[in-house]
Amino acid sequence: MSRGNLPVDAARIERDLADLAILTEPDRPWTRRAFTPVFLEGRRWLAERMRGAGLDPAIDAAGNLIGRRAGRRAGTGTLVIGSHSDTVPDGGRYDGTAGVIAGLEVARALQDTGIILEHDLEIVDFLAEEVSIFGVSCIGSRAMTGQIPVDWLERECQGRSLRQAIAEVGGDPASLSPRNDIRASLELHIEQGPVLETTGETIGIVTSITGITRIALSVTGRADHAGTTPMALRDDALVAAARLVLDIHDEASRRAREEAGHFTATVGEFTIRPGAANVVPGSAELLIDARASDPEAMTQFLDWLRSKIAGYPVTMHVISDNPPCPCDLDLCLDLETATRQLGVKSRRMVSGAGHDTAWISKTAPAAMIFIPCKDGRSHCPEESATPEDICVGAAVLFETVIAVDRRLAGPPAA
Amino acid sequence: MSRGNLPVDAARIERDLADLAILTEPDRPWTRRAFTPVFLEGRRWLAERMRGAGLDPAIDAAGNLIGRRAGRRAGTGTLVIGSHSDTVPDGGRYDGTAGVIAGLEVARALQDTGIILEHDLEIVDFLAEEVSIFGVSCIGSRAMTGQIPVDWLERECQGRSLRQAIAEVGGDPASLSPRNDIRASLELHIEQGPVLETTGETIGIVTSITGITRIALSVTGRADHAGTTPMALRDDALVAAARLVLDIHDEASRRAREEAGHFTATVGEFTIRPGAANVVPGSAELLIDARASDPEAMTQFLDWLRSKIAGYPVTMHVISDNPPCPCDLDLCLDLETATRQLGVKSRRMVSGAGHDTAWISKTAPAAMIFIPCKDGRSHCPEESATPEDICVGAAVLFETVIAVDRRLAGPPAA
Repeated sequence: MSRGNLPVDAARIERDLADLAILTEPDRPWTRRAFTPVFLEGRRWLAERMRGAGLDPAIDAAGNLIGRRAGRRAGTGTLVIGSHSDTVPDGGRYDGTAGVIAGLEVARALQDTGIILEHDLEIVDFLAEEVSIFGVSCIGSRAMTGQIPVDWLERECQGRSLRQAIAEVGGDPASLSPRNDIRASLELHIEQGPVLETTGETIGIVTSITGITRIALSVTGRADHAGTTPMALRDDALVAAARLVLDIHDEASRRAREEAGHFTATVGEFTIRPGAANVVPGSAELLIDARASDPEAMTQFLDWLRSKIAGYPVTMHVISDNPPCPCDLDLCLDLETATRQLGVKSRRMVSGAGHDTAWISKTAPAAMIFIPCKDGRSHCPEESATPEDICVGAAVLFETVIAVDRRLAGPPAA
Repeated sequence: MSRGNLPVDAARIERDLADLAILTEPDRPWTRRAFTPVFLEGRRWLAERMRGAGLDPAIDAAGNLIGRRAGRRAGTGTLVIGSHSDTVPDGGRYDGTAGVIAGLEVARALQDTGIILEHDLEIVDFLAEEVSIFGVSCIGSRAMTGQIPVDWLERECQGRSLRQAIAEVGGDPASLSPRNDIRASLELHIEQGPVLETTGETIGIVTSITGITRIALSVTGRADHAGTTPMALRDDALVAAARLVLDIHDEASRRAREEAGHFTATVGEFTIRPGAANVVPGSAELLIDARASDPEAMTQFLDWLRSKIAGYPVTMHVISDNPPCPCDLDLCLDLETATRQLGVKSRRMVSGAGHDTAWISKTAPAAMIFIPCKDGRSHCPEESATPEDICVGAAVLFETVIAVDRRLAGPPAA
């Protein structure tokens, strides 16, 4: 990338991320969970920075912190750049914050260059993207787009409802109504995986956010004395479950290798009973997390799994099944064009993790970009990304938001 | 078996087992753990039955209940028939008790037939064969033969030491000295496995009590995001551990199939970390219980395991390593002769479980027989054996003890 003439600045991004990182639970870096005092402190800091970037900060009904910059043609719709400032417990110094600060930097770059967009621009800190103290995630992006389940608002934590908690951060749950003015929404996020670091590319153009299906398997064997039951007369549930683990791994690896889209399947929870040294395991419980960018691939995987266990003492229960969210094609092309113009190496990718953009994409054109993170690590204190890579991403957003603004505005008025 | 002219009686055995079974923790059939009030009640009942069988009951220094029947030649040594009346929690209606009552029945048969043996005979209820409330097992048989670790006597439970607990059941730990008068020791026990039931044989002649080696394996992988880490870039500890489980099972099955002796290997404990739905497992812990009648087979298995994990991020730690205990060859032949003479189908077997006989065998000629148990189940409330099978075993012991008595006495005095 030729950085010389770009209005985005890695040093400003680095300073902002450092200033925000200080606002953490002191004994658990880098923890800033939504609804906690340190989260509110972070937002006060962020609102101040928004003002400095020429944005007008406010909390919307859903509890999102939005810095607004008016466009030339009021009422023609809004362009959004957003991510989240809350974190998981024990970490996530860049997960969410990189996207919020990149958005802030885009606003600063527009201010510095004196560019006025045709449309209004919003830099958004979505409320509670991570699983919050209320046990649910993506509260702000769901609530803003009319997708928050009503009963969620009544969930309780520490003597207050989520409804009350949203009000306490400045929202107004009684006034929630789905936004219909968003004409484009963009998000920068760390990849949370090792692909970009491995391939040496700086930007991932996210074409789709994966669907996630969770499947519980119960394997029944027979608990027998481990010393007196001959090998040939056993019905060892662990041995049967181990075969399933390998079959699932092989099938998922084959799909990931041979098919165009993203596919993963992980047995992340695995327990046996009774779990005693001298007893042949009598039962095993597996939880599969399967993710596919192509819903047909998930259907085929579930069919394969059903046929795999047919005739065996294994029961299967689909616990949750969320379909993939494709990103907006035009926005993806705009992002790709921007990377090409900037001379930045990029690749099209599928997001294997969920994001606010998944929810926005259901009601408005939305897309996102990934930047590399060190060793693919995320949700841990070691999570790391460079200001330079975030700055490249901010440049891509800057060029893209200008291009999108022009594209959506149509030919200039005569 | 031609039962008509035998002095042992299945009905008496059935009644005794029923009477003893009543003495259980009321809410947890069939629980009679050593050192508990119900255990002492069981022993009072047993001592009374011993008297009825012409035996003189007493508690030895080790806390064993011994019913003694004087032989013709005092001081020429003792023949022992013993097992245990204590149980595991929640079950074991026949585990131990079948052997004690079979011994009692042999004494009654000798009384009924008026046979006086050359040697003294002892029917023994060994103290605390099962893992007791003090966390250790085979207390009576170890203590009687000078094999109880000194520090065990100081183990504490509910405010008293094992030393005190042995004294409370009538023992005298201060006077412990290894027996050197035992010339033959026999035990009847339920098989606790499915072999006899499967083959349709009534008696297993135990030629050896298996060695037990416990091995801990730690598998290190890398905990990664289950959605964002492509299948090809994972280091999934569960997948690696599942391969080990199958390799261990296959190797043990091959040894069990192709080698002469007994061999089992069981992964009975298996845990993964972090154990979260959306995280690739980062580590796994396995505990292997390996049992072999041939010490060389165990050495080979450990060598195989070491070479299997060589070069992989797997650590291996041998936690305990107890060698096998061969039974006395002459006694095995005597037992086999008795089954043949009685027309009872038998097979030579290796005991996959530990028994009091393992400890006795280290200091005196000892052997044991198995009788079938239903579905191979043991250490559970459903554990079951028939009075008829126990009676056949008692007949084998009756014939064997007479034959051994003669063999050891040498030719009759002129």
